[in-house]
Amino acid sequence: MTTAPAATNEFEPRYASRASRMKASEIRELLKLLDQPDIISFAGGIPDPALFPNDVIGKAYADIMADPKQAASGLQYSTSEGYPPLVDWIVGHMGRLGVPCTRDNIVVTNGSQQALEFLGRLLLSPNDTALVTAPTYLGALQAFSSYEPRYDTLTPEKGNRTPASYTEAAAAGGGSVKFTYVVPDFGNPTGETISQAARQSLLDLSAELDCPVLEDTAYAALRFEGTDVPCMQAMDVARSGHIDRSRVAYLGTFSKTLTPGLRVGWICASAALIRRLVLIKQASDLNCAAINQMVMHRVATACYAEQVQKARALYRGRRDAMLAALAAHMPVGVTWTKPEGGLFVWVTLPPHVDGAALLKRAVAEAKVAFVPGHAFYADGSGRNTMRLSYSLPSEAKIADGIARLAKLVG
Amino acid sequence: MTTAPAATNEFEPRYASRASRMKASEIRELLKLLDQPDIISFAGGIPDPALFPNDVIGKAYADIMADPKQAASGLQYSTSEGYPPLVDWIVGHMGRLGVPCTRDNIVVTNGSQQALEFLGRLLLSPNDTALVTAPTYLGALQAFSSYEPRYDTLTPEKGNRTPASYTEAAAAGGGSVKFTYVVPDFGNPTGETISQAARQSLLDLSAELDCPVLEDTAYAALRFEGTDVPCMQAMDVARSGHIDRSRVAYLGTFSKTLTPGLRVGWICASAALIRRLVLIKQASDLNCAAINQMVMHRVATACYAEQVQKARALYRGRRDAMLAALAAHMPVGVTWTKPEGGLFVWVTLPPHVDGAALLKRAVAEAKVAFVPGHAFYADGSGRNTMRLSYSLPSEAKIADGIARLAKLVG
Repeated sequence: MTTAPAATNEFEPRYASRASRMKASEIRELLKLLDQPDIISFAGGIPDPALFPNDVIGKAYADIMADPKQAASGLQYSTSEGYPPLVDWIVGHMGRLGVPCTRDNIVVTNGSQQALEFLGRLLLSPNDTALVTAPTYLGALQAFSSYEPRYDTLTPEKGNRTPASYTEAAAAGGGSVKFTYVVPDFGNPTGETISQAARQSLLDLSAELDCPVLEDTAYAALRFEGTDVPCMQAMDVARSGHIDRSRVAYLGTFSKTLTPGLRVGWICASAALIRRLVLIKQASDLNCAAINQMVMHRVATACYAEQVQKARALYRGRRDAMLAALAAHMPVGVTWTKPEGGLFVWVTLPPHVDGAALLKRAVAEAKVAFVPGHAFYADGSGRNTMRLSYSLPSEAKIADGIARLAKLVG
Repeated sequence: MTTAPAATNEFEPRYASRASRMKASEIRELLKLLDQPDIISFAGGIPDPALFPNDVIGKAYADIMADPKQAASGLQYSTSEGYPPLVDWIVGHMGRLGVPCTRDNIVVTNGSQQALEFLGRLLLSPNDTALVTAPTYLGALQAFSSYEPRYDTLTPEKGNRTPASYTEAAAAGGGSVKFTYVVPDFGNPTGETISQAARQSLLDLSAELDCPVLEDTAYAALRFEGTDVPCMQAMDVARSGHIDRSRVAYLGTFSKTLTPGLRVGWICASAALIRRLVLIKQASDLNCAAINQMVMHRVATACYAEQVQKARALYRGRRDAMLAALAAHMPVGVTWTKPEGGLFVWVTLPPHVDGAALLKRAVAEAKVAFVPGHAFYADGSGRNTMRLSYSLPSEAKIADGIARLAKLVG
């Protein structure tokens, strides 16, 4: 018998080349450190559990488990496409957003993070180009980077570069432009919203590049004030006449409105794209937990609109507290966004201040946490920025935390 | 404004090259057709929902939702590694299987399908080689194929080829051997078990190739008779002295013992490999639904051993019914496996009989369904084979269905 015990517990030489692009999320690593109860955390951006509709969720589980037929299907394997009544609810929801569609246009995913990973896997070959804003959602960069793209930068509000400029840069990088990706409403990390005119320009650019648009709408329901901007998919359906001719893949989620704990989101797109994504879902994990989808269907039916109203009221108060505290305490030379919704304020520090260094001092000296902004840049720039979330601390803690943080900056 | 409406609803030219390898699972497509109540289905291989511990699961949900603190964490984002008490249960379970390990050796996945996809993503570059049996689990082929490998064939019971033979073929194919993959116990699709001697040889081969071994144990708990064979990871830990020096990644799941509906499985492997897989989990869907993991922890603690006993008794009776019916009705020239556990019997038909053609006739003329065997071969061979699952129909239906099917063969 040949006994060749493993000389090492790593298999680095056996990894695919994509493994070198897989990196830890600074946010998730940070979250682990924040169980210390005396820290005021602006880091997470996770919803306040006080908003979760526990009674409705608890009743939904109880009702399903009390009905042997429902329990049997909730605990069994199910279709990769999603639980049909939930899919029907989503179809109705998309219709209300200006996107008439059918079941064939929907696949249910484990939150919108899984949607991002699926679309990256479907579209990106090594050295292809993904067009993203700078900064952008770092979880999207994580999901896409496994597939070894290069990134190029969209600047929606300033006017983007010409299609030829993007195409030529992509070709020089060894691939082509595969998609544009944006978080148009109260975006993670800046809290800013892309105007309707800029959305039209993005659709124009994507049409000229003949590539899909990934529209990440995680925060879109959480508007506190101002006027709703139509979703890009609705605008594109209006242009093209039909969801099946749209180039927009709409990424939806219940995580910021109902609960992230059930891991339920969806993609709405042309039936042809959805058919591909269903294959990916099959190969990836067969299906989302059926019972979670059944619960989410009942909860969305019972209280979606009401929960959205509650979340808006709570987060609006906290945003107000944060903006007031920033105005009261931050020294000259510090600027920040004024979001009309969502969970985030984006702060630009004086050029010489490093966000990561500030975080270390903030945790140690002021017991305050946030996310340094450079994590949201594909190229690691933005050292003098930080993302502040007001979603979890009380208004009083927000006022206190910002005052403490400002002292370190000033 | 440039309006260039999408001329097509497909984005085929924008797909990554891997998209051409993404195919539908014949089984899952079949399952959709089997809602007709008059069909006797040997197709699925899904567990009998009569076994699901509904009372324990229902009580677990109720208890969690009744405790505001537990509810808040069950409905919130959670760590990518997994819910610590569930991870601790798994650590204990692995210890009982002869694999002493710690939390650092475990990542919780959405069933073992997600584990397969993660390991494919981590290890396979295009044209690399995956060593698999022929036939093998088709969901594994689906998961791996997204990463564009070539396949070469393991023949554990006949003695495998030399390491050099595999290495040279892999190099000729444009890559290297990245892993061996087996379902050692009551494997899907054949129901057969790899002997301890053949497991040692597979470990030898993998050591010579210096590659990980993916050990898929989906059915391992369901032994009806005979003697347990140690899991390959336990054998490898005995050889190497420590889980962190083992080359085996153990893929475990609760799907066949407790319920597949919560989508909870795990990987046990060296801490270094687990750290990589946790990054992949983060990028893929952040974490498994926390509440499902909390429920699974309570259910596993309350009744894992008891559920395994119940499942063994039920499926043993059905296996007996199927083997008896095959012996009674199948014509000369048809052979089949005699599994000591699991959910499947594998049938080899006379060489001129095509399994796919037989299925069409079986559904139309005999109201019986099964899975044609060629789907389980990476090269599409095995046309004269079929997989029969006895997991769902009653013993009487099994006897009736096999009799009807045999008439079509004879």
